Amino acid sequence: MSAMPAALAALIEHLVRLPGIGPKTAQRLAFHLLKAPREEAAALAEALVALKDRTRLCRRCFNLCEAELCGVCQDARRDGSILCVVEEINDLLAIEKTREFRGLYHVLGGSLSPLDGRGPEQIRIRELQARLESGGVREVILATNPNVEGEATALYLLRVLKPSAVKVTRIARGLPMGGDLEYADEATLARALEGRREIG
Amino acid sequence: MSAMPAALAALIEHLVRLPGIGPKTAQRLAFHLLKAPREEAAALAEALVALKDRTRLCRRCFNLCEAELCGVCQDARRDGSILCVVEEINDLLAIEKTREFRGLYHVLGGSLSPLDGRGPEQIRIRELQARLESGGVREVILATNPNVEGEATALYLLRVLKPSAVKVTRIARGLPMGGDLEYADEATLARALEGRREIG
Repeated sequence: MSAMPAALAALIEHLVRLPGIGPKTAQRLAFHLLKAPREEAAALAEALVALKDRTRLCRRCFNLCEAELCGVCQDARRDGSILCVVEEINDLLAIEKTREFRGLYHVLGGSLSPLDGRGPEQIRIRELQARLESGGVREVILATNPNVEGEATALYLLRVLKPSAVKVTRIARGLPMGGDLEYADEATLARALEGRREIG
Repeated sequence: MSAMPAALAALIEHLVRLPGIGPKTAQRLAFHLLKAPREEAAALAEALVALKDRTRLCRRCFNLCEAELCGVCQDARRDGSILCVVEEINDLLAIEKTREFRGLYHVLGGSLSPLDGRGPEQIRIRELQARLESGGVREVILATNPNVEGEATALYLLRVLKPSAVKVTRIARGLPMGGDLEYADEATLARALEGRREIG
């Protein structure tokens, strides 16, 4: 007979499966919930199930939403002539936080990664092409991650989209704001030099 | 209209209330659950509610349990003549993991901390005295934390328990195993010297 009741052990076991949650964190979380009012645990449980039941992907850009179209696509003030292509919904949310972008998005749902078995058929490239074919888009911003898979995806998309009349751009890669030239890695520094722009 | 659907925002808001979970971690967890099979989120939700509904405190030692008595108290092979007094259930579980202790426990439910308004009436000292009065206990091990509150609690308990015939011991405080003398803090080192024992 264990010193830990089955219900506690079961919750810890479920929490440990979450990313970045180890056994100690899981136990701390479980004890927090145990001490918290019953409503708090119940509300969290309800939110968990609601997330799965109520959300789906936007029919147009594949952002997360609760209706046919997501909040961005529903917003009439957004500029439909500029599409920002991102790998994941997380990336879309990160860009939205800047409040700098007023166009629409296209969420690929991943990057090209032959090693992981993700080819062009596994991400939403065909859907992107269909959106461009239906017209109205004059610029596609490739905002995939600045890593090996993201760069490869951007290059592939550039090749695929070139035949269309649309302008294709890539987000700038360079030194992060607040960063230090001395501590930048060589690849970032090389890219910062290569991407230099005339000012003044 | 936000780019984030309400159900996702709601879950993140609930997750952020948990200790040690910031907004970024909450978002990462929420997206993980979104991608995970529906059963995983449902099972986690169920475990959350079950924890609150099925568990209660052991009538005897105040460990967590699903019956009248906890797993430790129910175990007939445990030695009822030795009581290990800990602050929290967490501490009990930590000691159980060592598999070194075969006696029973008493969970105080906190430490004495006048600053936080926790006096002797707020922790289960009266319950401990009642257990000792009913007889059969020959040793009480004070295993409260080796910090200001825990030491104060141990001292208070020593004073309270002295009139009874029971032997009162305190867990050893000294250099942690695998530690380095050079890097030990002065209080620990002083305690390690003070607590030295003859060997060989």
